[in-house]
Amino acid sequence: MFVLKVSSKSNASSVAGALAGVIRENNEAELQAVGAGALNQAIKAIAIARGFLSPSSINIVVIPEFIDIMIEGNERTAIRLIVKQI
Amino acid sequence: MFVLKVSSKSNASSVAGALAGVIRENNEAELQAVGAGALNQAIKAIAIARGFLSPSSINIVVIPEFIDIMIEGNERTAIRLIVKQI
Repeated sequence: MFVLKVSSKSNASSVAGALAGVIRENNEAELQAVGAGALNQAIKAIAIARGFLSPSSINIVVIPEFIDIMIEGNERTAIRLIVKQI
Repeated sequence: MFVLKVSSKSNASSVAGALAGVIRENNEAELQAVGAGALNQAIKAIAIARGFLSPSSINIVVIPEFIDIMIEGNERTAIRLIVKQI
């Protein structure tokens, strides 16, 4: 699955554009976010992407999960957001 | 629809328990969050609630939307998370 890593500094509209493109190609995508600021940008991006996709009658939903990832040798808990077309 | 308002100080496990109960009763629920900290707790609560519900073969997904709400006379943009059983 195509993975988009989102940070607190990510531009939500830019992520939304990328996400909409991946959804159109593959029907699903994965966003990864570490921390509240990053997760905020990721969820905003999904809400914006819904608007990009709805004129094409593409409706997306999100499945949030916890994942453990390694950052600079330290284990951190991140949120994985599976975005899929329904 | 039953609305759960989540703040940055909300306990994610407690919200998850409430959310799981509402989903079992009504098949869907709405979470509202204002700000990155609140949204973080809301998404964590949904990830935890997925674990509470999966032994009963209840699978939930999230639809995020922007909403404008009034807080102490000021208009603020919040995130509405529609949680529904699929």
